[in-house]
Amino acid sequence: MAKLVECVPNFSEGRNQEVIEKIVDEVRKVKEVKLLDYLPDEDHNRTVVTLIGSPEKVKEAVINLAKTATELIDMTTHHGGHPRMGAVDVVPFTPVADITMDECVQLAKEVGEEIGSWGIPVYLYEDAANTPARKNLADVRKGQYEGFFQKIEEEQWKPDYGPQAMNAKSGCTAVGARVALVAFNVNLGTDNLEIADAIAKKVRFIGGGLRFAKAIGLKLEERNIVQVSMNLVNYEKTAVYRAFEMVKMEARRYGVPVVGSEVIGTVPMKSLLDAAEYYLQIENFDINQILEKRLLE
Amino acid sequence: MAKLVECVPNFSEGRNQEVIEKIVDEVRKVKEVKLLDYLPDEDHNRTVVTLIGSPEKVKEAVINLAKTATELIDMTTHHGGHPRMGAVDVVPFTPVADITMDECVQLAKEVGEEIGSWGIPVYLYEDAANTPARKNLADVRKGQYEGFFQKIEEEQWKPDYGPQAMNAKSGCTAVGARVALVAFNVNLGTDNLEIADAIAKKVRFIGGGLRFAKAIGLKLEERNIVQVSMNLVNYEKTAVYRAFEMVKMEARRYGVPVVGSEVIGTVPMKSLLDAAEYYLQIENFDINQILEKRLLE
Repeated sequence: MAKLVECVPNFSEGRNQEVIEKIVDEVRKVKEVKLLDYLPDEDHNRTVVTLIGSPEKVKEAVINLAKTATELIDMTTHHGGHPRMGAVDVVPFTPVADITMDECVQLAKEVGEEIGSWGIPVYLYEDAANTPARKNLADVRKGQYEGFFQKIEEEQWKPDYGPQAMNAKSGCTAVGARVALVAFNVNLGTDNLEIADAIAKKVRFIGGGLRFAKAIGLKLEERNIVQVSMNLVNYEKTAVYRAFEMVKMEARRYGVPVVGSEVIGTVPMKSLLDAAEYYLQIENFDINQILEKRLLE
Repeated sequence: MAKLVECVPNFSEGRNQEVIEKIVDEVRKVKEVKLLDYLPDEDHNRTVVTLIGSPEKVKEAVINLAKTATELIDMTTHHGGHPRMGAVDVVPFTPVADITMDECVQLAKEVGEEIGSWGIPVYLYEDAANTPARKNLADVRKGQYEGFFQKIEEEQWKPDYGPQAMNAKSGCTAVGARVALVAFNVNLGTDNLEIADAIAKKVRFIGGGLRFAKAIGLKLEERNIVQVSMNLVNYEKTAVYRAFEMVKMEARRYGVPVVGSEVIGTVPMKSLLDAAEYYLQIENFDINQILEKRLLE
């Protein structure tokens, strides 16, 4: 199989269709790259694009997308519900096939350097971070666009690329590399948000739970139930079925049933096949037994 | 996604490597077709080839393979442990993507007609069968090569294509269309073959069990355990997890645990994702959420 990398750039425009299409067109123009999805969000005033392809072609498409977004978006007038620090807000690369995390880090650095050369401060995050303080995107983005005019003056927030001075029109950009994330929510047969919260706290890493699980409790108003909403940031090490069973196990203490679950967005086959392998007790399973895997070789 | 069909021709040579390679080369020569596997079996003196591609290209590769097998194999001297009726013994087509069973039946008929034009009696079977009596391959092949010199004289065994006279050198051929088959075995924590047999009889269709399950009890001598060995001939309707749970449920009456399972050979992604969906209680799951599915579009 050829090297495949996924990139999920987020840019700060979710309302103006004409602008959104012009930016996304930069991906469409690179024929060898596949545009999997793009989701403009009006409330967030932000669009999340998912593209996939060879490292070279994804790099080309993402740089073109960033260039056009930089031209067309003006952060001085941007408002929206989602935290953001720049026109091209975050650019994470994720290994998909036959590619190492190191190669994705290298790709992040090349793209970061390019964006920096346009006069935009760039921070490397997650696996591409140069210091532990920049690993977590939330830490990097803290203060957001508005706060960065000050934050960037601090020595510890000197950008990895670009000037140590805020770019008023474009803000700054975080470029990173990370493993694929699986967004997985488990629905509980109760309307008691405290129970979902309590379970989330036990399941997640910071509460002493699973190493690669983030979790919060949420209320699903329409259905009048609650949910443990999780991000599994390394599904190979913290398997989906393990997180599921742990929520179920904790829910038992409250006599609350698990009434369903949701997988959000696109996920790698292996994240769910692991569950089939576990529950069906399959011995010596090899992912090459999957027809579609073979077809992609 | 482009139309994709799988074909699993079985030919009656499993010992002479030179002959086997010459026959399989016919698939390799058709560049657009993917040779997934070929498994020569010395005991059976038979080789099972799995190839996949567009209907046109698979047809081309299979006709070339059959032509070369017909030239190189002489049934008058063939011996082997597996039932067989011809040099090109069976040629089943299976829909993989964006293709209907009717199109596979049409493909079977075209290939059958071609092989018949070489002076070889051809029988259409499974979904391609013209009468219920020819649906089951075992019924068609009954009597084998040796018995066919007589069987073919019977009016009810007049071939669908080719002469109503046995071809001594090449025997006859069954060409068919069928859904993908999942070979799935469940291992039990006992050495009592009677228990595996009893469970197999309850799970399989002819015993009043699942509509698309065939099952037998087997002993795994090396591990000193027994196994319920199943062929699920329509995994979309008789799901793998349902067969698994039914074996588990029946095993409970004997106090026998399920100690593992095996998936044999290549299976479509969906056959195992169904299990993940069931056990994780995923709501509104869409197979297009699987990254690899999207990559194949």
